[in-house]
Amino acid sequence: MTITTAAAPTARSADLEHRIAQDPGRFRVLTGDRPTGPLHLGHYFGTLRNRVRLQDLGVDVMILIPDYQVLTDRDTAERLEEYTDGLLLDYLALGIDPARSTVFNHSAVPALNQLLLPFLSLVSVAELSRNPTVKDEIAHSRQSVVSGLMLTYPVHQAADILSCKGNVVPVGQDQLPHLELTRTIARRFNERYGNVFPEPDALLSAAPLLLGTDGTKMSKSRANSVPLGATADETARLIKGATTDADRHITYDPDTRPGVASLVLLAALCLERDPHEVAAEIGDGGAAVLKRTVTDAVNSHLAPHRARRAEYAADLPYVRSVLRTGSERANALAERTLEEVREAMGTFR
Amino acid sequence: MTITTAAAPTARSADLEHRIAQDPGRFRVLTGDRPTGPLHLGHYFGTLRNRVRLQDLGVDVMILIPDYQVLTDRDTAERLEEYTDGLLLDYLALGIDPARSTVFNHSAVPALNQLLLPFLSLVSVAELSRNPTVKDEIAHSRQSVVSGLMLTYPVHQAADILSCKGNVVPVGQDQLPHLELTRTIARRFNERYGNVFPEPDALLSAAPLLLGTDGTKMSKSRANSVPLGATADETARLIKGATTDADRHITYDPDTRPGVASLVLLAALCLERDPHEVAAEIGDGGAAVLKRTVTDAVNSHLAPHRARRAEYAADLPYVRSVLRTGSERANALAERTLEEVREAMGTFR
Repeated sequence: MTITTAAAPTARSADLEHRIAQDPGRFRVLTGDRPTGPLHLGHYFGTLRNRVRLQDLGVDVMILIPDYQVLTDRDTAERLEEYTDGLLLDYLALGIDPARSTVFNHSAVPALNQLLLPFLSLVSVAELSRNPTVKDEIAHSRQSVVSGLMLTYPVHQAADILSCKGNVVPVGQDQLPHLELTRTIARRFNERYGNVFPEPDALLSAAPLLLGTDGTKMSKSRANSVPLGATADETARLIKGATTDADRHITYDPDTRPGVASLVLLAALCLERDPHEVAAEIGDGGAAVLKRTVTDAVNSHLAPHRARRAEYAADLPYVRSVLRTGSERANALAERTLEEVREAMGTFR
Repeated sequence: MTITTAAAPTARSADLEHRIAQDPGRFRVLTGDRPTGPLHLGHYFGTLRNRVRLQDLGVDVMILIPDYQVLTDRDTAERLEEYTDGLLLDYLALGIDPARSTVFNHSAVPALNQLLLPFLSLVSVAELSRNPTVKDEIAHSRQSVVSGLMLTYPVHQAADILSCKGNVVPVGQDQLPHLELTRTIARRFNERYGNVFPEPDALLSAAPLLLGTDGTKMSKSRANSVPLGATADETARLIKGATTDADRHITYDPDTRPGVASLVLLAALCLERDPHEVAAEIGDGGAAVLKRTVTDAVNSHLAPHRARRAEYAADLPYVRSVLRTGSERANALAERTLEEVREAMGTFR
């Protein structure tokens, strides 16, 4: 299996992984998902399994559902409760353990949100405006104008990370500019007011090259991916509709046949096999056999997850209490940090 | 006395004044002062007396000490506690009654600060960037770069006003763009999510044309003005150092003799007389007699205020409890508003 087929640490993060393995109790990870749609297979292979792995290593994993940030690139927060429930169900079903990890949401953590104010004083408008990821997101936004929230959300993200003094942040390449801003804010704060914050490290991993069923980037809010919580039939229907090509001979060639390669890779990930082997076995079976193979692999692989998910779904009051309890812990951590910040800055009473 | 010598409603605000007088209980005023220095005579004649007048009419007066916004144009919040105590002492000595009016500070009102997030989603970066008052403040900032806090503080100001559903905001001409932004945010929110906010009206008043002792704009943080809490001796020294001109014959001519006219006006305001008459009486007495006249007028006028201020200063625990109690009320109002906002936007839990 090649290095790009699964979430794998880059050379830069290998040393960090080593340090984590040596002494996991020294590390707190901040990660999360916007509640803008259901979690899908891209999340599963890209980040979700990695969180459970870190938790099981003994790292303190904090998972944020940044509900206020839904509005960064859209006017209204649709189905917020449904999507939030869905995230919680997937986390629990995947093995996130509320006794060891913390799930929380922005709107229940006032102390975190308030850190936005002092942090905004530490960055220049010029720095915010030249953030390449924000520029890209502006280009893909559903809104015709760039809102103040879009421009400033990386500062809010710094508050996410620094309010709980997270020192490790799992990121993809495109999130590196944000983490760099968080590091800048931590450094400037420490230089100006005294040492309060860690400078968090990026845990950079190459996510597998899974495309959406329409051949574009997989996205929670584009309905072009297989949700983890979908039924077996829905999964079959979604994969049946995936974009392939006219060549009946199936190969694994991401550069020239991205649609086909993405399906082959998905089957390979579920089967824990090499994608070239999977493709060779299908051979001249064409798209129909490929899609049947993928559907079976996904449904088998996710069956235990979906069964656990359904169990949790039968007890939503418990599921929601996980978020409440987690938010209380996150707010307690953020309160303490905010106190230190005020103390260092000159006693905001 | 001409219209520009004291805080007087403009034509545009005369109708609002009339409506307030008719039914004061329908109005809530939001106003305040940054804790960046002691309140001075400019504040006294420009805004402070007006607050007491509105309170005594029966209007609900909310006075904000925006401590987080100290950092808008400077790196550190110097002497924050001292300046905050000073503001409280002046408010109480002037007749602000904690049983009828509410004094609160940003850092003690988490629900207000959080409104910044949804409000940031309602304004564009372009709108923020072209605010003429922000542009002017950037030009006069102590900082070499424009911070994110400087760009976004008018949005935070909208949260100040709208968190307590203030419907009247006393402003000078230069604050009108900010109030217009608040009105825009209220209108957009109501259009997009349902009717939650009033569109607050400006209570525009022309502040008297008092200059600092150095001939520039009077400013809390430039030490170029007579603090309300100064002693009689300090007052004499400060006025003695004021910029005048070489012409011994004293006149009231703001356009051609701004320094002399400002001193004449100050005496006239304290004596409740016409500045031309005050100038005529001094006649050829020159700057020395002018300054003695001003010093005596200021010290006599402020003597009762200073006596009350000293009484309150002897009981700082009480004075600080006024801020705590006020902030609790402000936070309760803001909590209620935040709940309505979440409800309207789609239930942020």
